[in-house]
Amino acid sequence: MAESITPQREDFSRWYLDVIREAELAENSPVRGSMVIRPYGYELWENIRDGLDRRFKETGHKNAYFPLFIPMSFLQKEAEHVEGFAPELAVVTIGGGKELDEPLVVRPTSETIIGHMYARWIQSYRDLPLLINQWANVVRWEMRTRPFLRTMEFLWQEGHTAHATAEEALAHTRRMLDVYADFAINDAAIPVVRGVKSEREKFAGAVASYTIEAMMANGWALQSGTSHYLGDNFSRAFEIKYLDENNESRYCHTTSWGVSTRMVGAVIMTHGDDQGLRLPPKLAPTQVVIVPIWRKEAEQAGVLALAERVESMLKTAGVRVHKDLRMDQTPGFKFNDWEMRGVPLRIEIGPRDVAQNAVVLARRDRPGREGKTMGVPVDSLTEQVPNMLAEIQAAMLADATARRDANTHDVTSYDEFKRVLDEQGGFLRVHWAGSSEDEARIQDETRASLRCLPLESDLGSGPCFLTGQQTDRIAIFARAY
Amino acid sequence: MAESITPQREDFSRWYLDVIREAELAENSPVRGSMVIRPYGYELWENIRDGLDRRFKETGHKNAYFPLFIPMSFLQKEAEHVEGFAPELAVVTIGGGKELDEPLVVRPTSETIIGHMYARWIQSYRDLPLLINQWANVVRWEMRTRPFLRTMEFLWQEGHTAHATAEEALAHTRRMLDVYADFAINDAAIPVVRGVKSEREKFAGAVASYTIEAMMANGWALQSGTSHYLGDNFSRAFEIKYLDENNESRYCHTTSWGVSTRMVGAVIMTHGDDQGLRLPPKLAPTQVVIVPIWRKEAEQAGVLALAERVESMLKTAGVRVHKDLRMDQTPGFKFNDWEMRGVPLRIEIGPRDVAQNAVVLARRDRPGREGKTMGVPVDSLTEQVPNMLAEIQAAMLADATARRDANTHDVTSYDEFKRVLDEQGGFLRVHWAGSSEDEARIQDETRASLRCLPLESDLGSGPCFLTGQQTDRIAIFARAY
Repeated sequence: MAESITPQREDFSRWYLDVIREAELAENSPVRGSMVIRPYGYELWENIRDGLDRRFKETGHKNAYFPLFIPMSFLQKEAEHVEGFAPELAVVTIGGGKELDEPLVVRPTSETIIGHMYARWIQSYRDLPLLINQWANVVRWEMRTRPFLRTMEFLWQEGHTAHATAEEALAHTRRMLDVYADFAINDAAIPVVRGVKSEREKFAGAVASYTIEAMMANGWALQSGTSHYLGDNFSRAFEIKYLDENNESRYCHTTSWGVSTRMVGAVIMTHGDDQGLRLPPKLAPTQVVIVPIWRKEAEQAGVLALAERVESMLKTAGVRVHKDLRMDQTPGFKFNDWEMRGVPLRIEIGPRDVAQNAVVLARRDRPGREGKTMGVPVDSLTEQVPNMLAEIQAAMLADATARRDANTHDVTSYDEFKRVLDEQGGFLRVHWAGSSEDEARIQDETRASLRCLPLESDLGSGPCFLTGQQTDRIAIFARAY
Repeated sequence: MAESITPQREDFSRWYLDVIREAELAENSPVRGSMVIRPYGYELWENIRDGLDRRFKETGHKNAYFPLFIPMSFLQKEAEHVEGFAPELAVVTIGGGKELDEPLVVRPTSETIIGHMYARWIQSYRDLPLLINQWANVVRWEMRTRPFLRTMEFLWQEGHTAHATAEEALAHTRRMLDVYADFAINDAAIPVVRGVKSEREKFAGAVASYTIEAMMANGWALQSGTSHYLGDNFSRAFEIKYLDENNESRYCHTTSWGVSTRMVGAVIMTHGDDQGLRLPPKLAPTQVVIVPIWRKEAEQAGVLALAERVESMLKTAGVRVHKDLRMDQTPGFKFNDWEMRGVPLRIEIGPRDVAQNAVVLARRDRPGREGKTMGVPVDSLTEQVPNMLAEIQAAMLADATARRDANTHDVTSYDEFKRVLDEQGGFLRVHWAGSSEDEARIQDETRASLRCLPLESDLGSGPCFLTGQQTDRIAIFARAY
């Protein structure tokens, strides 16, 4: 066990901060609530970004870039929107040495400024749908921050689309939720639950908010991406109108959807263990680390030559591989170090391996003997290593899914709810016919919030766990970040 | 000639704005001085970014991300730096509804906050060199803005490196200048001149600033990337120190270097003509456009089937290809439209081509008959199209180089300088032994500034064109953006 990392059961929050520090993912900055994303953390983010960006492009979106600053008056055009974001704004009041006539808000999200531009770009039904995404930094003045999960400034993508009809916009909102779920499940190995947010939890200005909810290793929930159907709220506020086939003027229906650097936190807390990070191969900055091992000087040349050859073979095969040549560290230290950094697969090469023209493979997701394969012929590596990475990817998803399922509890009364929450935690699945006020009271009393009304469930109809009223609405409650 | 585009000779500035509007590269935003980068412009920027990012990674750099906001006190730690940037700052004074104790500056560049972090990360000579790059937005309060060339907010990369010795840092400054030149020449087809900035033009806080200077189609210069050797100025201001092999504490020597969305402006103004954009194939969002042509309905199916087949062949070959299926536009309109958008190669497919199983290729960089090749067999396209794109890339560089050389004038007196500048413009190459005051006077009198002291020149020694003093220093003056 890495000594500098607090065990998860002892203190999960400290474990999280320890892993981030030791693996050099991020660091606090001198600006309160802003973090510095260090190279290893940023590479992880780059792989998340690339996996999402590819999917956005495949579904017909183009990237663009809109201004960081938004006139304060823009936010005020949509009543719920400004109410939701006003307390969190950073405001520029001085520019070029002069007080500004109208203060500029540092974007907390870009519906308003993008809405203003869409009103200029969209004239006719031929201009629809308009499918644009932006990769950007946004700022929300948060009082209690935690690296990746909640920071004053964060990186994200925000998709903004405009459609001719409500049906089409709603279908697109759902399509992008599916894109997020596909990314989370297949790239991040996180078995997210897709659902609708309650009225109380939805985005400020949305008609409906959809979410993917992930379960962290401590059973808490993490909202990992949201997709909003905005109806014509922003279209009316910004006059986003089009002429239809009959030359009649109509309001567009719009959507917005975002995933942020929070996803890095989701990866850390879904897969990490007491040794440190465990990264799914598709997102890992380094997929394979080669550790050469020798005792006598006479052995060194042969070991290093084979390490070199293996590295070059794997690079050619498109594997992200690193060779650890640090001369002042023991193999044992290196094993722990790379385990802590979550590298999915280790290749050990010693003198005996050189003699056999073979190597040892050791999986990060299976500790000790169980994860080791000895005597793997060098010539088979370009096939075996990608296969094993795919196996690890699948195993990590299976493990996380099994843990999520084992920690999802169906409860039928508020007493049971409170007892299971305290004793076991996890996701509490219930029949739900309560009000927003009931929801607020539950959160006050238990610190569990309504995460979502899941899109898929096999529970059927039953009495609400709180009110007793018969309903086929299902809700998932959990403590959440 | 595109009617909506002002001819270059009539008004180059209007031509520039017309092209940006018609090709939908960017648009003014409601925030003064901030532009919206539209999808076509952003794709061009993505290709620039990818070309640079690949080179940074190949030269050992990692990406990271530092805060948008910088405490005002940080800027004040380096005297020249704050003097240079103070007039251009956007300042956040309100956060979360409250007045801030210390105002936060929206980063105009990140030497200070990165310097602060480097002081924490660097302990020993083993931590050096530290090679990090950041992709980010920055803000400088500009009074007179022009899309891509000078905007209040812009996108860029800023590399920041720390080294053990002055020699190593200076060598790295030069290496990154070469990386920029390599990108400009080989990807952007812009034959930049590498040189040193004069004392008067160097970066605020640098010991020496290097630059790549490009010549636009109107003969004006555009500084397209800079690489700064910062000596130990920022290391002393932020205490970036390391213990050397003898356990003695020493200051690091640092560098910084940046290329911004300005490069998009350089591409537009280097290659564009009265028809609109001309994009070098390596950066073009669309490298090849297929225009199907038919008159009789009976011809349509065959033409579209071949267009489909050609598109799929080229996609598989890794070519960025688009098929223009707009039914309400004539082929002639489409030809002009894609020429205006600068697509390097057009493939025309008509009924006669279907009969011959061949296509017509038309190059954007060679107008009319000269650029057309008829009867190119379909089966040869996966080879011929990439070859022709490479040919176009090379021809665009050759054309731009020839124009730069034809418009670079050696002058030997101030009278000649003024006459040539007014009559011919372009780069004026001179022997130079003047002072910063002389430089300022020349700029006041002629609007030409000292662009750089070029690293390479065959002029040898001679008398300064202004002072008559013998010197082997060469300078390039030009009117500049």
